[in-house]
Amino acid sequence: MPLSAEQQAEIERARAERRETRRAVSEGIEARLYEAVPVLDHGFVRVIDYMGDDAAIVQAARVSYGAGTRQARDDRGLIRYLMRHRHSTPFEMCEIKLHVKLPIFVARQWIRHRTANVNEYSARYSVMDREFYVPAPDQLAAQSSANRQGRGETLEGEEAAEVLRLLRGDAAQTYDNYQRMLNQTFEGETIEEGRRGLARELARMNLTANVYTQWYWKTDLHNLFHFLSLRADPHAQYEIRVYAEAIGALTKAWVPAAWEAFEDYRLGGAHLSRAGLEAVKRLIAGETLDAAGAGMSPGEWRELMAALGK
Amino acid sequence: MPLSAEQQAEIERARAERRETRRAVSEGIEARLYEAVPVLDHGFVRVIDYMGDDAAIVQAARVSYGAGTRQARDDRGLIRYLMRHRHSTPFEMCEIKLHVKLPIFVARQWIRHRTANVNEYSARYSVMDREFYVPAPDQLAAQSSANRQGRGETLEGEEAAEVLRLLRGDAAQTYDNYQRMLNQTFEGETIEEGRRGLARELARMNLTANVYTQWYWKTDLHNLFHFLSLRADPHAQYEIRVYAEAIGALTKAWVPAAWEAFEDYRLGGAHLSRAGLEAVKRLIAGETLDAAGAGMSPGEWRELMAALGK
Amino acid sequence: MPLSAEQQAEIERARAERRETRRAVSEGIEARLYEAVPVLDHGFVRVIDYMGDDAAIVQAARVSYGAGTRQARDDRGLIRYLMRHRHSTPFEMCEIKLHVKLPIFVARQWIRHRTANVNEYSARYSVMDREFYVPAPDQLAAQSSANRQGRGETLEGEEAAEVLRLLRGDAAQTYDNYQRMLNQTFEGETIEEGRRGLARELARMNLTANVYTQWYWKTDLHNLFHFLSLRADPHAQYEIRVYAEAIGALTKAWVPAAWEAFEDYRLGGAHLSRAGLEAVKRLIAGETLDAAGAGMSPGEWRELMAALGK
Amino acid sequence: MPLSAEQQAEIERARAERRETRRAVSEGIEARLYEAVPVLDHGFVRVIDYMGDDAAIVQAARVSYGAGTRQARDDRGLIRYLMRHRHSTPFEMCEIKLHVKLPIFVARQWIRHRTANVNEYSARYSVMDREFYVPAPDQLAAQSSANRQGRGETLEGEEAAEVLRLLRGDAAQTYDNYQRMLNQTFEGETIEEGRRGLARELARMNLTANVYTQWYWKTDLHNLFHFLSLRADPHAQYEIRVYAEAIGALTKAWVPAAWEAFEDYRLGGAHLSRAGLEAVKRLIAGETLDAAGAGMSPGEWRELMAALGK
Repeated sequence: MPLSAEQQAEIERARAERRETRRAVSEGIEARLYEAVPVLDHGFVRVIDYMGDDAAIVQAARVSYGAGTRQARDDRGLIRYLMRHRHSTPFEMCEIKLHVKLPIFVARQWIRHRTANVNEYSARYSVMDREFYVPAPDQLAAQSSANRQGRGETLEGEEAAEVLRLLRGDAAQTYDNYQRMLNQTFEGETIEEGRRGLARELARMNLTANVYTQWYWKTDLHNLFHFLSLRADPHAQYEIRVYAEAIGALTKAWVPAAWEAFEDYRLGGAHLSRAGLEAVKRLIAGETLDAAGAGMSPGEWRELMAALGK
Repeated sequence: MPLSAEQQAEIERARAERRETRRAVSEGIEARLYEAVPVLDHGFVRVIDYMGDDAAIVQAARVSYGAGTRQARDDRGLIRYLMRHRHSTPFEMCEIKLHVKLPIFVARQWIRHRTANVNEYSARYSVMDREFYVPAPDQLAAQSSANRQGRGETLEGEEAAEVLRLLRGDAAQTYDNYQRMLNQTFEGETIEEGRRGLARELARMNLTANVYTQWYWKTDLHNLFHFLSLRADPHAQYEIRVYAEAIGALTKAWVPAAWEAFEDYRLGGAHLSRAGLEAVKRLIAGETLDAAGAGMSPGEWRELMAALGK
Repeated sequence: MPLSAEQQAEIERARAERRETRRAVSEGIEARLYEAVPVLDHGFVRVIDYMGDDAAIVQAARVSYGAGTRQARDDRGLIRYLMRHRHSTPFEMCEIKLHVKLPIFVARQWIRHRTANVNEYSARYSVMDREFYVPAPDQLAAQSSANRQGRGETLEGEEAAEVLRLLRGDAAQTYDNYQRMLNQTFEGETIEEGRRGLARELARMNLTANVYTQWYWKTDLHNLFHFLSLRADPHAQYEIRVYAEAIGALTKAWVPAAWEAFEDYRLGGAHLSRAGLEAVKRLIAGETLDAAGAGMSPGEWRELMAALGK
Repeated sequence: MPLSAEQQAEIERARAERRETRRAVSEGIEARLYEAVPVLDHGFVRVIDYMGDDAAIVQAARVSYGAGTRQARDDRGLIRYLMRHRHSTPFEMCEIKLHVKLPIFVARQWIRHRTANVNEYSARYSVMDREFYVPAPDQLAAQSSANRQGRGETLEGEEAAEVLRLLRGDAAQTYDNYQRMLNQTFEGETIEEGRRGLARELARMNLTANVYTQWYWKTDLHNLFHFLSLRADPHAQYEIRVYAEAIGALTKAWVPAAWEAFEDYRLGGAHLSRAGLEAVKRLIAGETLDAAGAGMSPGEWRELMAALGK
């Protein structure tokens, strides 16, 4: 359970308040505001704030004095046009701020997306929480033999049991020793009087990469779509993909027309190479082709066939 | 007068509407939302949207579950601490979106600030407005003889009159010829039947750099402060400085505690060089110093004396 | 002719010098270094410096201690893999610095690519050159009736003649008046004694958008490819496309393997939407389809057919 | 010793080669190229490549056709002027690429500097090295009681011994269990036949934050100076400060004039707040002041006195 009673109460309090604004409001995301969407065993994603809605994209594309068109239908058409033709700047006019709790090894992948604003919980300033990620049994995968950076089949029996034992044991032990070195609990109480504790900025180095951290993360819709297209992709590591999926569902609630366009023109589509496009033309013309005939490497050919559902 | 009756009506309509939100609200900026603040002879700045308030800075710095501290006084203290110690990321958690009408030569300086989102009115897609900037008499400055990129005293009499005549005449003529080449008015009507117009993307090259363009410009508070510290500076060109000052006043209404910290620790302060700091120490110790004695170039010494109000 | 004899001599001098380095060297681009490649009537592109070569991409992807693989063939394969799978960070490890002379209205499009470093010739500090772009006869296009931001057929006869007359006349007149207001020539000589000149930062507003400016522009290879994919595209305006094409040729000389991968997987390919992919599957299965049958808008269908060469 | 014999040989090979180039060359940094500068117990910094030298800053500021001025003395003066007046763009025209080996908890701070290009060793793709940071005895600091995010005095005796025992023990054990879960050595050999190994992308979560990773990191000189001004600061954590210092020494060898200006106008100077500036004026006028008299908080007053060497 990721949230304490006190944290839950703070969230409820925030959700209960209503204020008046002249700004654009997205009803879909207002309903989800502040709410913690659980991800993995102890993580979550919460929307803290947002700026703009579908109409704001249109308004910026037109540099208009008022609030976009009168017709939501026209807005949708323009949004689809903008997405299809890679006009990315109007999508930058919407902004979202999330509070995310996530394991450190996931945070290390996530932070590589540079076009975002981040405030992370500071382990120099505060004591880390005693929470660490342990994969669910169906995610305990062996190394893939086909893909150097992927997963193969699921471990089972004693193999699985040992992995869980090691992960749990090491995370618990390193956390306990972290606290012992600090000589301080998460709440800030001294554990043993008369002994000095190691500086927090040093002690944290003893924690394993599955310990949970948290941050405020803010980005614009264009860069969010870029993040989602990479991290909601089947090739992304499962542990970041589940965050991307949770954020995707929230994005859909926030800007439904932009989301639909994103699904139709990005997520659901495929990029064909020059050779792939040639091959498709010949397949449509009725030719029978294989990798060699198409002048493609086996890997490329396999990817093309997969895109064509073969 | 920069706004048509129709534009003014759109603004009034937008200002009249109220919606409910769970988000943080800044009353100070709500009062100014959508309103066009006049700048130069035909320009303006309008706040279209914003995200966050002073409390949001604190909330992000603490990565908190709720809405910052209960006490505005504590928020102010933390904000001042963050500003003083160059902790810039919490200020990135507030975002503002402006609609700006500005001469092209000002836009060309402005766009050099890269950490912002921009949608500009497209002269490939639409016809430009017939509006151009002509300096007010007290801004008709001669080239400075002391500063290669600054202004000297004000031109007067026939010198001033001739400049105004040339600026007005050339802007009017180039705009008229732009329209003639387009064979189209701003409203899109054909001027002369049976003649084809030059492509808009070409005809625009005939316009002078004082023609007004407009854009939606969105940035976070940290980068806004950086923009303001450079562009509200006395060394900035007057024509961009007046925009920076207008935006500064709006920023103060939006996040008063952050603005106060910005004024106290950035705008109102001074950066001393290593030699400048040495000189100050010796001056405090009662020494009499000049540039040579301080080991500073005449320019540096002059700047130091100016900072010390001498 | 874009270069003065003196400028040409400086370039020759720079090209004549050779130095020893331990760094990676790309022979292909060394041969082109400093050379001005003419673009439009007075513009050019020159490579001033570069960092890295094809092997540097591989070296970074492997975080290796040495200089990549021994085999150029292996490098090529890995580069193609990285490009195909959108691994963009290794391409960021190569950097190029260009000196570009270009009309202001082109510079205004170009500068929208924010992930680059720029130093532009300052019209606050110096007097602008008397050079302006006038389209060649085959580029004097009418407004397209089909595409709101495109060109239609070429103007001819008196229509064309009038456009050229107006463009030339207005550029010459506004430049002459710019000089008269400055009371200063490009070389810095006073034109008329006893009269003060208008500040340069003001006088420049009288220049038209086809006046040439110049800048140093530096970017990494990944962002350069992004720039080229948008600006070498047939939908880009001709006047920026010719710069993109000139830079493309230089890039090919610099990093031939990366360029080949870029052509095969980006430039020469096509992105299919979800509906487009569905349509292609049905076409391969032998169905006869039209826009309605495919559930696509007429515009999307037209674009798909164009991609398939129909 | 951080480098294997094979790695050392690769570095020697790279250092031994010389090529001809037409590009600007910095002799100071050529002498250091590829060389591993040791940092902490197993880390290092190596310069892999660079673009530009002091003259390149001048050349870009002038948008010149040739290679800057003939006089290095003039270059120095202009560089100092640019630094003093915060003209940052010419410094962006120099670029450096480093290979860095560093503990993960240091990498997590470092990566927050977003304006850089990074390729990190992938623990999804490869097995991590068995190397972890353990502080030297004089760096085993207690938590500071005055500064929530700083260090106090050094731990000694059994307190120190226990910390070292725990850090070493946990790092060794978690690494051993990482290898056991992988069922694979660093060199890629299977440890125990017939047992499947856990996916690398999962097993890595068992490693502690003091394990060493490595990356290629590339940035421009302006952003490098920003990085150094924050990370070479006495308030920065020791473990990142030593990297900043090593990079500072390399930067000085690369662009000596820019480095001198950076030291004089940034590192060695001080920023005074509005109140600090007022206080300095009154101190120079001979007044006796304390925090209350100056209207400053105790913390601000203490910082001002420290800047003034009191």
